[in-house]
Amino acid sequence: MLRQWNGIQKPSDETLAARLDAARELLAKQQMLVKEMKLPVLVLVEGWGTSGKGSCIGKIIKGLDPRFFKVASMEEPTAEECRKPFLYRHFIKIPEAGNFQFLDSGWMDEVVEAKLHQNMDAEEYNSRIDSIKRFERQLTDNGYLVMKFFLHISQKEQKKRIEALLDNKDAKWRVSKKDRWQNTHYEKCVGVYDSYLEDTNMPSAPWYIVDAKSRKWTELQILETLTQGIEIALNNHALSVPLLQNVFPLVPMPKLSEIPLDCAVIEEELYKPQLKQLQQRLGELHNRLYRKKMPVIIAYEGWDAAGKGGNIKRLTEALDPRGYEVHPIASPEPHEKARHYLWRFWNHMPKTGHIAIFDRTWYGRVMVERLEGFCSENDWKRAYNEINEFERELHEWGAIIIKFWVQIDKDTQLTRFTDRQNTPEKQWKITDEDWRNREKWDQYEEAVNEMIQKTSTVYAPWHILESVDKKYARIKALQIVIDELEKGLK
Amino acid sequence: MLRQWNGIQKPSDETLAARLDAARELLAKQQMLVKEMKLPVLVLVEGWGTSGKGSCIGKIIKGLDPRFFKVASMEEPTAEECRKPFLYRHFIKIPEAGNFQFLDSGWMDEVVEAKLHQNMDAEEYNSRIDSIKRFERQLTDNGYLVMKFFLHISQKEQKKRIEALLDNKDAKWRVSKKDRWQNTHYEKCVGVYDSYLEDTNMPSAPWYIVDAKSRKWTELQILETLTQGIEIALNNHALSVPLLQNVFPLVPMPKLSEIPLDCAVIEEELYKPQLKQLQQRLGELHNRLYRKKMPVIIAYEGWDAAGKGGNIKRLTEALDPRGYEVHPIASPEPHEKARHYLWRFWNHMPKTGHIAIFDRTWYGRVMVERLEGFCSENDWKRAYNEINEFERELHEWGAIIIKFWVQIDKDTQLTRFTDRQNTPEKQWKITDEDWRNREKWDQYEEAVNEMIQKTSTVYAPWHILESVDKKYARIKALQIVIDELEKGLK
Repeated sequence: MLRQWNGIQKPSDETLAARLDAARELLAKQQMLVKEMKLPVLVLVEGWGTSGKGSCIGKIIKGLDPRFFKVASMEEPTAEECRKPFLYRHFIKIPEAGNFQFLDSGWMDEVVEAKLHQNMDAEEYNSRIDSIKRFERQLTDNGYLVMKFFLHISQKEQKKRIEALLDNKDAKWRVSKKDRWQNTHYEKCVGVYDSYLEDTNMPSAPWYIVDAKSRKWTELQILETLTQGIEIALNNHALSVPLLQNVFPLVPMPKLSEIPLDCAVIEEELYKPQLKQLQQRLGELHNRLYRKKMPVIIAYEGWDAAGKGGNIKRLTEALDPRGYEVHPIASPEPHEKARHYLWRFWNHMPKTGHIAIFDRTWYGRVMVERLEGFCSENDWKRAYNEINEFERELHEWGAIIIKFWVQIDKDTQLTRFTDRQNTPEKQWKITDEDWRNREKWDQYEEAVNEMIQKTSTVYAPWHILESVDKKYARIKALQIVIDELEKGLK
Repeated sequence: MLRQWNGIQKPSDETLAARLDAARELLAKQQMLVKEMKLPVLVLVEGWGTSGKGSCIGKIIKGLDPRFFKVASMEEPTAEECRKPFLYRHFIKIPEAGNFQFLDSGWMDEVVEAKLHQNMDAEEYNSRIDSIKRFERQLTDNGYLVMKFFLHISQKEQKKRIEALLDNKDAKWRVSKKDRWQNTHYEKCVGVYDSYLEDTNMPSAPWYIVDAKSRKWTELQILETLTQGIEIALNNHALSVPLLQNVFPLVPMPKLSEIPLDCAVIEEELYKPQLKQLQQRLGELHNRLYRKKMPVIIAYEGWDAAGKGGNIKRLTEALDPRGYEVHPIASPEPHEKARHYLWRFWNHMPKTGHIAIFDRTWYGRVMVERLEGFCSENDWKRAYNEINEFERELHEWGAIIIKFWVQIDKDTQLTRFTDRQNTPEKQWKITDEDWRNREKWDQYEEAVNEMIQKTSTVYAPWHILESVDKKYARIKALQIVIDELEKGLK
């Protein structure tokens, strides 16, 4: 893209000034619509060192209401961030609905830097590109506007700028080592940047190469492209998105109704010794995975009163409390609702070597959100693939993913509900909502069947825990976790 | 994709047979829905030589009603096809709505072959990849299901198959020179194939790598993936598709109402000599572009009775009849309507060195089809970009594209209509439809303004022909054509 780029004819100063005024005015007007239509806008500004990324963003935001935009500069990942999945520190920066987020360089930098300095082989590079493409596509599919600019200057121009800055005592510090390296290795950089731009140039989030030779001209190109982009995004508001083909190999799974529950029992006298033995083994493995820095994600879903809480308790009893976290998932807060539904789960990703246990999960999208109409039909139908992609991302990061469906029958639920209702110290556990959900048992069952069929990927299959006998379910859960950790630690 | 591919666990023979029966039955059922919902299905089967592409297609079609599918094998392009744009021979093969088209290899082959044998530089390769991505995305955006399979076998397996065929007197002929070359250069091929698969792996039309070690297992993988794909495509039926960001540099254009018509006149005594002189010059240029093998596409749009016919006539008078064709575009035939709206225009692409003149064009999509509701709002809104992409394709092929809007005012039209009505030998030129269209003048004007704004790309801008004075318009058209040809022939 950079190599074949011929530039665009710069208009005369007079025309430029007039178009700049018009574009600024239009953006200011659009901001109200952006707010009103709850459009989230992500503006990515990449480019050569000294191409003027920061100062350009500075000019553009002048016309915007400061309550509704944020600017972030890319910094070296912290030690903590290095222990998270690649997309983590980027995903958590996505804007709220109705807001602008400007990024003075985003996720391009660490990928091209690693490639330039041979710190990344072709396979890893391809995997990063896939991650980035999925990330950006998930954003645009979920109604985000993603505008990507690359500020382009020639080697000669860059050299001139670097020299001018170095000549100026007060501006000297602004020239980084990286800028100088870039300039002396300009051709090599062009090659690597070009591939990256080519590889991540998607129809829903294309790259715009900006001729950055003069400040005003740079600003105009960005403003005009951005306002054009906003117009298109507003037009796409609330439009359904075609479902994508599944590309992840799936494990065949039974329907819930095909799972026998009555034989899944454990004899009372076997429970305690088995529990103890398994918990001890799990404790040992926890130590090993901590040292091996292997991240683990355990996801619990299941019927109300199926015994998730007690099951999780038997797991955590065995774990070193410094090495795990339990995340109970309730309905989303307003600031969570205003973002991509996976955003709050990205925020809860464990560090390497840690275990994150989710009591209810991102699968809410295809269960409660589906059935209660909290999202559109198109949203939840799209979610199977989005979730498979999300878990794929975690898998490629190196995480072990264990997903449990805690299964009981309808009668068992009734017995437990009634028991809760009648036992004062258990009454907090039962709400009107639980009864309402129970009325929709059949619809939930259908949704759960579809979910299990469509998201049991080979790298993150569902495990069914038959939990009419809660003790049986606990032993089975422990055994599965141990098996998966042993496989992963091999 | 091939390098990291680990294969999928092949099921036991028993399971395989059962799943094969189920998948065949499902496909047979789906065919009726495909017909009913008018889903066009394009199945691309690529893969290694001797991987069994043909025989696999042969098995799959056994379960289909032969009236509703076609199979085509890729052949070397004919001399005629070599003189057409790259996508031509592929685009014209797309299926009708409700039908299956199986391709025993499609557009992958010529691209990877050229790359393998160093007949294509990086720039040309990238441009091909862009074409292919746009082509496939236009199909899926327009409701096509595009399923892409790559039949994968190891070098060892391929060698074994080649040797077995060579040992068999009657099958010997089936081993091509290319198969043998592939086998001895297997690793090199993996590299080139892999990049191609990676580069064209799109969310809406992803690649499926098929483990082609055994015939039945190959068939099962394709059948199961295909039926899954059909299910998703049926779900997407008639769904709107989000508009894409514009990525083509546009030329600023005036609105029709801003174009002065009264001063666009030519003095009677100047017309004849100028016409003669320009036509002579055009004739010379036609010869030159014929020898230089430069293709030219001239598109006419304009108000009814604006004078398109007479204008075209003055152009063609100057041309050698062996080197041009005029395509009058009426409403589409049923077999044209059953395909992507650009299909019939792809069919009319000129050979290199030839001129194709279109009297009305693909812009019908954003004018008559928009205003008469012959396509959905989403369809015509998407069309601006699709058309820009289409013309971009022709431009990259090397074509000169000249687009005329023949402009008159409403009063002039009325005068001409009335004249036609009252002159017996002109009456055939005026229909009730013309009068009906006239009633929608304001809506048309709005549509034309939007069209001109959004499709005046730098490589294919609109030219306005002020045609209240038809003679003026003719002279202007000739001058523009001459200018553009001279620029192109430089």
